[in-house]
Amino acid sequence: MVITVVGVGLIGGSMAIALKEKGIASKVIGVESNPAHQQKALELGLVDEILPLEQAVVASDVIILTTPVNALQQLVPLVLDQVQNQVVMDAGSTKSGILELIKTHPNRGRFVATHPMWGTEYSGPEAAVQGAFVSKATVICNKEESDEDAVILVEKIYKELGMHLVYMNAVDHDVHVAYVSHISHITSFALANTVLEKEKEEEAIFELASGGFESTVRLAKSNPAMWVPIFKENRDNVLDVLNEHISQLRKFKACLEKENYTYLTDLIEQANKIRRIIK
Amino acid sequence: MVITVVGVGLIGGSMAIALKEKGIASKVIGVESNPAHQQKALELGLVDEILPLEQAVVASDVIILTTPVNALQQLVPLVLDQVQNQVVMDAGSTKSGILELIKTHPNRGRFVATHPMWGTEYSGPEAAVQGAFVSKATVICNKEESDEDAVILVEKIYKELGMHLVYMNAVDHDVHVAYVSHISHITSFALANTVLEKEKEEEAIFELASGGFESTVRLAKSNPAMWVPIFKENRDNVLDVLNEHISQLRKFKACLEKENYTYLTDLIEQANKIRRIIK
Repeated sequence: MVITVVGVGLIGGSMAIALKEKGIASKVIGVESNPAHQQKALELGLVDEILPLEQAVVASDVIILTTPVNALQQLVPLVLDQVQNQVVMDAGSTKSGILELIKTHPNRGRFVATHPMWGTEYSGPEAAVQGAFVSKATVICNKEESDEDAVILVEKIYKELGMHLVYMNAVDHDVHVAYVSHISHITSFALANTVLEKEKEEEAIFELASGGFESTVRLAKSNPAMWVPIFKENRDNVLDVLNEHISQLRKFKACLEKENYTYLTDLIEQANKIRRIIK
Repeated sequence: MVITVVGVGLIGGSMAIALKEKGIASKVIGVESNPAHQQKALELGLVDEILPLEQAVVASDVIILTTPVNALQQLVPLVLDQVQNQVVMDAGSTKSGILELIKTHPNRGRFVATHPMWGTEYSGPEAAVQGAFVSKATVICNKEESDEDAVILVEKIYKELGMHLVYMNAVDHDVHVAYVSHISHITSFALANTVLEKEKEEEAIFELASGGFESTVRLAKSNPAMWVPIFKENRDNVLDVLNEHISQLRKFKACLEKENYTYLTDLIEQANKIRRIIK
């Protein structure tokens, strides 16, 4: 099977590695607009060749779109215009907008909307790693809008990558990811800015920063080119969750201001219930 | 050297393991008020015996206090009342209050105020692990208020545990830890509550929660018995940082509300500068 990866960065590159390694793809074609990334992807052996989009689509059985979500808005309709029997899938972090956009596209059935729940704070082809995706979930959205054979092929690919499948409609997906992914990035960015803003003696931060701080601030290294479009696309949900998060922080603030340590204990005990969810 | 650990939990237990393993302590005595923890500490071989505080102090060369910071308020003066030439050190996360309290104690010189920058979100003797502390920093506060021989012995112990030493006055320490540790815990607790509050379909969280969410919410499992006293002790600094953090989050909120994606990009690029500090 020949597979094209459009956008050979963290996700596309890691997928390319796994597709070859598992023997799913006999050949991986890369489509990549950034010349430095093209060269790096070839150097690292992530892809077998770099082709322009049109040629890659014609030459492929499956086209996987792993660009930032803003680029998907142009890319998905464009690729669907060109496909015959190929299967097209994306890996974007938001789903409602793009699925609304292509709802009436004559080739809508060839597209399978997916979101593999894996990533790191790094980006670009150098960020691609072996063994990504294993034991993680992939969401498939609005499955019923895709052709059955396309869904079956996509399911097979993700299972061979070691992932388990979760089915969800796009609207629910976008709400859920606002909670379990997007807000984490905002808190991490804001935490980094909090520390960088006030702390002048950076050496002191560097010396004292322990595992806990690194853990909560790690996502602050994430790329704006990926995240601004996600926040824009999922704006309403992210704003809802952000408002809720600020009001939760205000409860901690009120406890400290009023020295209400009983309520502070309650808030922390409530938070401890996350143990049920995160092992 | 006989060493007593007062409070055989995550920190005390992990220290006991390392002290024995490195041959620093020929014998480790545990002082522990919780009977279940006493039994567990003996079962796990963390300590050689459990003794009442008074007997342990008499029998020891070094007494390490690893209780929550509220207990230190009673414990440090009490132990200093009993020591002759022994060295007493703590491992508490706040420093100004306790050092102010014992400032004029006749045995002040025998006490060395320390804060090893290591921990996990777990607590109790079962949470103790081998290999803790290695390659992390330990802060020694107000060194000049301690006897020289006491400081030298404490430095030797921490170096043998594989830690590097940072010297700081207690007031600066408490400001710094508000930034690089305490605020991380509050954001994590608040993030857990945000998700638990709004999200009713827990299965969906569990399925979709990826590494990023786990990373930012992990500290929310931390014990209120440890953290409420820390927030209480370091209240002014924590409130300052929390206010700053809320105002940083409001900037993200304003960007989304006003759809100012240029400023949103600036905020994220600013946050990316944390790369200079956290590798």
